[in-house]
Amino acid sequence: MDKLQKYVKLLVNTGVGLKAGQKLVINCPVDLAYFGRLAMKEAYDAGAAEVLILWNDEISGRIHYLNAPDDAFGHEIEWIKARVKYLVDEGYCLLNVYATDPENLKGVNPERVQKQQKVNQMMSKPLSDKVTSSAVQWNLASVPTPSWAKKVFPNAKNEEEAIDLMWEAIYAACRVDDATDPVDNWKAHVDSLQGKANKLMELNFKSLHFKNSYGTDLITELPAGHVWVACGEKAKTGNNFIANIPTEEVFTAPHREGVHGIVYGTKPLVYMGDVIDEFWVKFEKGKVVEYGAKKNEHLLKSLLELHKNADYLGEVALVPYNSPISQSGILWYNTLYDENASCHLAFGRGYNYCLAGTDDKTEDELNEMGLNQSLTHEDFMVGSPCLEIIGTTQDGKEIAVFTKGDWAI
Amino acid sequence: MDKLQKYVKLLVNTGVGLKAGQKLVINCPVDLAYFGRLAMKEAYDAGAAEVLILWNDEISGRIHYLNAPDDAFGHEIEWIKARVKYLVDEGYCLLNVYATDPENLKGVNPERVQKQQKVNQMMSKPLSDKVTSSAVQWNLASVPTPSWAKKVFPNAKNEEEAIDLMWEAIYAACRVDDATDPVDNWKAHVDSLQGKANKLMELNFKSLHFKNSYGTDLITELPAGHVWVACGEKAKTGNNFIANIPTEEVFTAPHREGVHGIVYGTKPLVYMGDVIDEFWVKFEKGKVVEYGAKKNEHLLKSLLELHKNADYLGEVALVPYNSPISQSGILWYNTLYDENASCHLAFGRGYNYCLAGTDDKTEDELNEMGLNQSLTHEDFMVGSPCLEIIGTTQDGKEIAVFTKGDWAI
Repeated sequence: MDKLQKYVKLLVNTGVGLKAGQKLVINCPVDLAYFGRLAMKEAYDAGAAEVLILWNDEISGRIHYLNAPDDAFGHEIEWIKARVKYLVDEGYCLLNVYATDPENLKGVNPERVQKQQKVNQMMSKPLSDKVTSSAVQWNLASVPTPSWAKKVFPNAKNEEEAIDLMWEAIYAACRVDDATDPVDNWKAHVDSLQGKANKLMELNFKSLHFKNSYGTDLITELPAGHVWVACGEKAKTGNNFIANIPTEEVFTAPHREGVHGIVYGTKPLVYMGDVIDEFWVKFEKGKVVEYGAKKNEHLLKSLLELHKNADYLGEVALVPYNSPISQSGILWYNTLYDENASCHLAFGRGYNYCLAGTDDKTEDELNEMGLNQSLTHEDFMVGSPCLEIIGTTQDGKEIAVFTKGDWAI
Repeated sequence: MDKLQKYVKLLVNTGVGLKAGQKLVINCPVDLAYFGRLAMKEAYDAGAAEVLILWNDEISGRIHYLNAPDDAFGHEIEWIKARVKYLVDEGYCLLNVYATDPENLKGVNPERVQKQQKVNQMMSKPLSDKVTSSAVQWNLASVPTPSWAKKVFPNAKNEEEAIDLMWEAIYAACRVDDATDPVDNWKAHVDSLQGKANKLMELNFKSLHFKNSYGTDLITELPAGHVWVACGEKAKTGNNFIANIPTEEVFTAPHREGVHGIVYGTKPLVYMGDVIDEFWVKFEKGKVVEYGAKKNEHLLKSLLELHKNADYLGEVALVPYNSPISQSGILWYNTLYDENASCHLAFGRGYNYCLAGTDDKTEDELNEMGLNQSLTHEDFMVGSPCLEIIGTTQDGKEIAVFTKGDWAI
């Protein structure tokens, strides 16, 4: 079996965790049709009851954003809501093939994009609720596109070489090689990450203190009942799945009103087709009270103002600086990869499964429990080789969690 | 402007007849994404209010047909019905990019295909009703794909050459060249075809008698109020459009109960990914009473039995044997082209605009008026260089309409 086939098999069987009799929807860019077809065949080989491919195309999306009249944006469309409802009602598992040109939306009027994305997020909320609460099995995976490959490997001698380099980097990061079975590799990797999560659960920290030489000095309180999550969750379907391949993170939700101090971004944040860089954010009682960026501060502003509670945190994720993805030294321009190169936080929504007792709670109740509710969820990187994280236990004891950017527990 | 750009402009502006402020939906295969994007840009340049691309993919469709379990087929899906309703309610114009591998469904269980196509046709009926009654502007156009190009040009030295040959054949058939403006060319062509249609309207034949040396000896009565149609119709939107590019035909509906005698197919009929060849059909009082085929008679049987009234005729179309498409000598394996190389008939549905006074009539009433109602509409070729067509007027006079396969009026 070649590496491509191994990768597809890994995504469908270990990532989505698809079992015989389940339905699968594949969200796939039109330019990666060959990959969507491979995944469909793999899913039927795994006994899928039905596989549906929903095609998308950001290039015609860009043409639409640039050329349509103003009133073409921001409308709720009934059939799209009906499609979301169908996927939810029928219990579809999700495979999202994620391949975005980081510069696709460059030069597009950001008001148009925000207006449209806001309504898109509202329309897809019933499904994203299922995803964020692990009610369904899902996986997000990347596949090289020419624009992405050339951005990451600008020195490749042609498009073909850039794509080849991109594939090899993806295979390495995803523990896919010629010699071994990636399914076994992932069993071992999941065990290791879950060991860290279990240890953090035992320690049951009251708060974490982040400090590094960039100037970060941030305390994130953790709500009572917080849950540390590593990959290999069990969905409410009863089946295990791995939402992100690759993944190196162990994460939970901070208390939405318990974030204090200042944090510096350590990697560029790709947003709206552009890059927010050298930025910092200051929090008081969980809320952003001040911020700045050397590059594209206005984009940071619109990110924080896009949706209610986008200016609170929803995630704190620990990733060692010596993870394979970090060590690749590649700036991936792709959150799925870059977030696994570095400790990170997320503006906006916290995941229900990061807090005990969230079932059937309203948004207001979840906010009150400390789990931030928002339509935004945007990761930003804060890890560095000099990052220190000190945990404070419920009885006030201080324990090093990270030293010099790496696990200390 | 290059020929590709001229072709796209012809389809959007002359074919769909898109006017500023109208909405357009483009049905496009994923492998022809570049073409869908060109058409979207062209439509916005023409002032479209909104352009929506709905992607399709027959290759994953084949994987689905071959691998899904039996009960994955034939279900009505609410969101798809909601999408059809949306397109109808919002008055979308249609551009269908038609690029089918004639062998795509080869080896697939035809029962699955029929079951699914039946429900697909039912779900899209509100939109196909608008199309067949010219309530909306629409155009069906072809774009080369590797599989189609290699089928038509098996001796090309590689895929690229086959695609190039296919494009040149399409441009020639569609009156697109380097020197002239295809929009002007089409104005002249439309005038010529409409001249024939006007003449046939004046003659107001009671019936047509088809005879040739293949053995065809068929009388098709024409219902009172029948309308001869050439391209360049006016839609109920008030705008002109040309549904098929290319088109060489002048057509109407026979009386559903007024077809008598025997007719021989003169070209292979591509159906369900396979070819029905050397076939004949015998009619009494409009209904098929006997038929035979040297190749794939069982497919002819399933075509005639698929839907109610598929065994009656809905269209009679006149195409001179010396049309440019006919003279190209190419077997296109594509109805849009092959039907314009030859006189043809269609099993199944007749078009409302081929009969006066059909507005707001029920299906039963339309059948009673002589306009066959069915979910099937399948063309088959009956033209030949030896075809004679004699028209009989209301007062019994006989007039030659076609002599030696070409117009005699």
